[in-house]
Amino acid sequence: MILGFDLKKYIRDIPDFPEKGILFRDITPALESPEAFGWICDTLAKRYSGYGIDKIAGIEARGFLFGSVLAYKLSKGFIPVRKPGKLPGETISESYSLEYGKATLEIQIDAVSAGEKILIVDDLLATGGTAAAAAKLLGNAGGRVIEILSIIELTDLKGREALSGIPLYSLISY
Amino acid sequence: MILGFDLKKYIRDIPDFPEKGILFRDITPALESPEAFGWICDTLAKRYSGYGIDKIAGIEARGFLFGSVLAYKLSKGFIPVRKPGKLPGETISESYSLEYGKATLEIQIDAVSAGEKILIVDDLLATGGTAAAAAKLLGNAGGRVIEILSIIELTDLKGREALSGIPLYSLISY
Repeated sequence: MILGFDLKKYIRDIPDFPEKGILFRDITPALESPEAFGWICDTLAKRYSGYGIDKIAGIEARGFLFGSVLAYKLSKGFIPVRKPGKLPGETISESYSLEYGKATLEIQIDAVSAGEKILIVDDLLATGGTAAAAAKLLGNAGGRVIEILSIIELTDLKGREALSGIPLYSLISY
Repeated sequence: MILGFDLKKYIRDIPDFPEKGILFRDITPALESPEAFGWICDTLAKRYSGYGIDKIAGIEARGFLFGSVLAYKLSKGFIPVRKPGKLPGETISESYSLEYGKATLEIQIDAVSAGEKILIVDDLLATGGTAAAAAKLLGNAGGRVIEILSIIELTDLKGREALSGIPLYSLISY
């Protein structure tokens, strides 16, 4: 692990994406750098080693990138939290509001056993709507969400307050 | 590494998904099993260690799961190959035909440097259309695709023949 690693050097600001007026925090330079991606994964694995997690739930699609490495490194099961219609078999879903319209997340009905302690992983927390819906979904399936991990947190949008008291951990914030 | 590991025990057959008459090979039980997921990742990392790869390109979304762990383990840069409109900044794209309609893949224009040796990662090879389009896209960006890795190969669909001579490696086939 590199102490004092400056991850923000690997986040690229792209104005007006996905729409005019939004400053997008692009994480792809961190993915393309073995140093940055390695630092992220090692730092997270260190935090969550011995944390008492049973399973790691990654939110499609960028949450898959960090969640899968963490599941591998900690030897925990991985649960894909996906957009509707992507998962075969019996699923349960949770819909939530976006600024314009609605979105839905799905998991397979047998993805969680009762009482399992779940860490939810995504790349960015904005208003918190997606993370809150994922937490509700995993809770409805019988899991106990013990923490939400987001690589980036946009603090102005107060997403942390939308998480019904579930702790949020982020590596960097803007 | 577990010798003679039976990965097919962790693949679930789901009939009539995503549509009537299709037998879907569901990889989620392998993701939920630390033994199976660990075996996949360790086996792949062993194969590609010292293989002369510069970067690993994972195809959204399930290709992200295996590609990211491999990029982490081999300390190589990861390139997300995404559906249209997901990547910020300047992108290049490649469209291809599906049974009904068309699909498009995108990468950021600066994702590849000239001559970089690329491994493409996806979870399943069926007709090969997606993998062939990803290879064309990465080639157009200046990369040299040296192999396509798919966890599962559906041999009846002859996707291997659609890859313009690029070698395909799969862990299991049906």
